[in-house]
Amino acid sequence: MLILLDQDGVLADFEHAFLAAWATHYPEIPPVAYEDRRSFKILDDYPPALRGKAEAIYTAPGFIRDLPPVPGAVEAFHALLAMGWDVRICTSPLTQYENCVAEKYQWVERHLGREATQRMILTRDKTLVRGDLIIDDKPRIEGAVKPSWRHIIYDAPYNREETEATRLTWQNWRNVLAGELYRGDY
Amino acid sequence: MLILLDQDGVLADFEHAFLAAWATHYPEIPPVAYEDRRSFKILDDYPPALRGKAEAIYTAPGFIRDLPPVPGAVEAFHALLAMGWDVRICTSPLTQYENCVAEKYQWVERHLGREATQRMILTRDKTLVRGDLIIDDKPRIEGAVKPSWRHIIYDAPYNREETEATRLTWQNWRNVLAGELYRGDY
Repeated sequence: MLILLDQDGVLADFEHAFLAAWATHYPEIPPVAYEDRRSFKILDDYPPALRGKAEAIYTAPGFIRDLPPVPGAVEAFHALLAMGWDVRICTSPLTQYENCVAEKYQWVERHLGREATQRMILTRDKTLVRGDLIIDDKPRIEGAVKPSWRHIIYDAPYNREETEATRLTWQNWRNVLAGELYRGDY
Repeated sequence: MLILLDQDGVLADFEHAFLAAWATHYPEIPPVAYEDRRSFKILDDYPPALRGKAEAIYTAPGFIRDLPPVPGAVEAFHALLAMGWDVRICTSPLTQYENCVAEKYQWVERHLGREATQRMILTRDKTLVRGDLIIDDKPRIEGAVKPSWRHIIYDAPYNREETEATRLTWQNWRNVLAGELYRGDY
């Protein structure tokens, strides 16, 4: 089994780090609370007048590098490897790649070990990457070709409209993947 | 047609930049001349006593960013796009990813334009990337799965033992690709 794990929102906790940085930089402006997030792209949840402030937070040097892991993600990564699965980290860099690209590697080295950096695949189009499954918080993953993987949505407030989909968290992942394997033609 | 182009050795002229940097840093030690290169990994062509010096050259800050383009590569990239092909830049970062990863993006932005950075796919395992063709100077591309692409070798002294393979350069590429299309089942 070849499984692709998205990085931001699945392994690295972008959302809560964003809120913490917002509270530090703009304590007088209320941010969009986590449970109120409705768009996959965080900027789309902010009014135009605040988008520059929001973008400045997540493109700042060190922001991506210093994201905390999503609780349970590091343990699940190692557990999947121990189960004999081929695990890859499949992540789309920001169009403002400048800090983000190297910091994504630094993040993986810090939390998953230097060897895990060799499991990274950076691409803006994930349909071009082969796999049996992808775990990703993006509600719909589109690209140039019909994907070879089945998409399991990592649960987040901004993807809960995709009601028919299987929902995974690092608390229920063993059950969800067992269900996938039972149901699937792998 | 989805075509993957390798970066170092195909778009970016790693070999000649290495020789130029060597001549600057170690003028008293003769390097391995380009035509005498036999191994895909440059370190394998140097005696153990010189490998540290060689590695220091290509992992130095700025080395990857400042590589000159392979003559004809930039023109061919734009010509392939103009022909309606879906062109992606598929590149494996060094295990010493520190400078290399961000600089590969900077190189693409400088020579192919910022928009082209969105066509980049960074992966240590290119068999996981889908495509019809890959142009790569590595003699044999191996990985976790059977690739979907056909490999066209970009000609270099260290891959000329692969005698049965089609050989491409940015001088003959129109003929080689026309031959591939004629022969292939795309």
